[in-house]
Amino acid sequence: MPTIRAMGERAQAARTQLAKLDGVAKRTALEAIAGGLEVGCAEIIAANALDLQAGRESSMSAALLDRLSLDEGRIVGMAKGVRDISAEEDPVGRVLWGTVRPNGLRIEKITVPLGVVGVIFEARPNVCSDAAALCLMAGNACILRGGKEAIHSNTAIAEVMRQALERSGLPADCIQLVEDTSRESAAEMMGLTGLIDVLIPRGGAGLIRAVVENARVPVIETGAGNCHIYVDKSADIGMAAEIIHNAKTSRPSVCNAAESLLVHRSVAVEALPVIAERLAVKKVELRGDAAACAILPGTVPAAENDWGTEYGAYVMSVKVVDSLDEAIAHIAQYSTHHSEAIITQNYAAAERFLREVDSAAVYVNASTRFTDGGEFGFGAEIGISTQKLHARGPLGLANLVSEKYLIRGSGQIR
Amino acid sequence: MPTIRAMGERAQAARTQLAKLDGVAKRTALEAIAGGLEVGCAEIIAANALDLQAGRESSMSAALLDRLSLDEGRIVGMAKGVRDISAEEDPVGRVLWGTVRPNGLRIEKITVPLGVVGVIFEARPNVCSDAAALCLMAGNACILRGGKEAIHSNTAIAEVMRQALERSGLPADCIQLVEDTSRESAAEMMGLTGLIDVLIPRGGAGLIRAVVENARVPVIETGAGNCHIYVDKSADIGMAAEIIHNAKTSRPSVCNAAESLLVHRSVAVEALPVIAERLAVKKVELRGDAAACAILPGTVPAAENDWGTEYGAYVMSVKVVDSLDEAIAHIAQYSTHHSEAIITQNYAAAERFLREVDSAAVYVNASTRFTDGGEFGFGAEIGISTQKLHARGPLGLANLVSEKYLIRGSGQIR
Repeated sequence: MPTIRAMGERAQAARTQLAKLDGVAKRTALEAIAGGLEVGCAEIIAANALDLQAGRESSMSAALLDRLSLDEGRIVGMAKGVRDISAEEDPVGRVLWGTVRPNGLRIEKITVPLGVVGVIFEARPNVCSDAAALCLMAGNACILRGGKEAIHSNTAIAEVMRQALERSGLPADCIQLVEDTSRESAAEMMGLTGLIDVLIPRGGAGLIRAVVENARVPVIETGAGNCHIYVDKSADIGMAAEIIHNAKTSRPSVCNAAESLLVHRSVAVEALPVIAERLAVKKVELRGDAAACAILPGTVPAAENDWGTEYGAYVMSVKVVDSLDEAIAHIAQYSTHHSEAIITQNYAAAERFLREVDSAAVYVNASTRFTDGGEFGFGAEIGISTQKLHARGPLGLANLVSEKYLIRGSGQIR
Repeated sequence: MPTIRAMGERAQAARTQLAKLDGVAKRTALEAIAGGLEVGCAEIIAANALDLQAGRESSMSAALLDRLSLDEGRIVGMAKGVRDISAEEDPVGRVLWGTVRPNGLRIEKITVPLGVVGVIFEARPNVCSDAAALCLMAGNACILRGGKEAIHSNTAIAEVMRQALERSGLPADCIQLVEDTSRESAAEMMGLTGLIDVLIPRGGAGLIRAVVENARVPVIETGAGNCHIYVDKSADIGMAAEIIHNAKTSRPSVCNAAESLLVHRSVAVEALPVIAERLAVKKVELRGDAAACAILPGTVPAAENDWGTEYGAYVMSVKVVDSLDEAIAHIAQYSTHHSEAIITQNYAAAERFLREVDSAAVYVNASTRFTDGGEFGFGAEIGISTQKLHARGPLGLANLVSEKYLIRGSGQIR
């Protein structure tokens, strides 16, 4: 098993070759990968069976087992995902800007690959092929490190992809998987200055925190979503109930699911019972402040740490606020700056919320669940960035590049 | 003296107010700052005299004393710099992209301030007003930390700016100066997660390294420039000599000055004496590999660490290479990815160099000294980014912002 540092060196060598490829060559390699996944379906399913067995032996929940599980349909879906990415516009070599200076220098700003991208993920094995395909299409070599629970599946998927690269005449090391799933291997990736150009952690709050604390390589934070919905005094309450129901319950484990509900005091008595009734269909547990508990008898009182918690489950915190200002201030204090929504019929309130809430995606009268590359029309994403540097929101192909200036002269000096 | 953490909290409070301002309000504040610098000229010069005295007592070099020194002309220049920044286009609130989705959601991507920007600088006191003005115009509160040698000057300049903010009805804490110039204060800034949104170190390789090693807040690296010039076999040798002379000697202390010369073996015997003669006018010390030393008798032999050294002085390393490939590989190994140039009359060599050299600015037949916001036509800059995330090259107003998505709906759920 190569060391992480050796993998970084191999990736740097591979990315130099990768950076020279045009879109056609990258698409050929991606088609080989998609075909390889289909042809290698049985091997991947066999490897996945080992992970599922280990999962059952360690009493993994049914929901997690389902997320981990691969069958022919899911593998065909992974292959389709790779083909969809190869059908997107090549993000490399785009001319972003250009000028001719008075001294005759011709300056162009173009997009270039980032170089070597590290991806640390905890989620389902399909992330392995999605992330690799996005990196490859953007001309980046990648070093993938998945979770222990999917190691056999990820290893089989990575092997299929590496063989496909070789068949396409590309270095297999354009895609590498870290087989050591210990904490140490993740920590080593975080410290690989000069070899990993960008590290993308894709996972829960614990992973993101560990990366922020320890990384010495540049990072794009993704995924933590303590998303709020604020029901303004002028809200259409029926619309509010539908949006909250959708944002909370359509897929509670994902980062764009709503976690916290704020309701203006002047409509709380009317709105909260309607909302609570709609949420009761999915047995959502509400945790309220004193005012919410008074309106909804039997509600669990919220503790201070509820306001900052991303439940990822059928649980939602509820607070009654006196004003739009209080709602905005509460969000500023507790949000992870992912997605927040206001439900209102008031123009000024909508515009103030849009302007003053400092999150990647800010909504009026719509579900936070729309924060997604596909829903925004961007295609596949590697995660949702919640940081302010480089890219914010759905992180797709177009964000997996850097830029450089090309300057053509004829002897100019300064 | 407030703690760094307290300054971070004050900056966060100030930036919330700052983010609400339109361009007119920001320009009014910048005009007040410019006027304040002019009116406060005598105070600033008196404070600067204390720094100069301390500098002389600690045997500071004449060149450094000159960089530190402020007179009326230089302060008027600082005020003009602030006015120039206020005349630039407001970088906040620009609509970068927009769409209407099939479900009727209207999505807009707009620019927003970064929030709180920390700037650690070592250079001349004018950086203090330049950096503050750039941050303010981009809607960011800033925390500035200059060097010990300019502490009295920086304190006076910051005080003038803070008073101007108050006169304009803005919180003084939009601009704060860290008066503690110990290493500890810099380290504390690097760890201020959640309070400093972006940290920009502006200084030498030691500072940049310390920030990369220790920062837990997002960083934009600037300033390290081990810039190369490669003289190809088809170069116009007279042009090469002029460009190298300009890039090395016009201002050797800056980051876009050339530090290392690569010459193709087939022209080395002809070109090196011409180049050396041109550089001898400024008494540039050459440090060569064996081949260069053989062609230029008396040249100091280069040690391995010369290839990675940013001299910032009248010193240049020289290596004879066998091919364009060797030049590109050498640059990949030793460059800081700031600016590199090829001198060539060959079209294919020029295009390969532009494509394959992975630096912020890549030149054909021009001096590396052009890597500069003003020379690129962008206006004032806070530094030259040598990293791949967020922004690369001259870092101006347009790069001191983040972005967010605004989504206007009418009850959409997913």
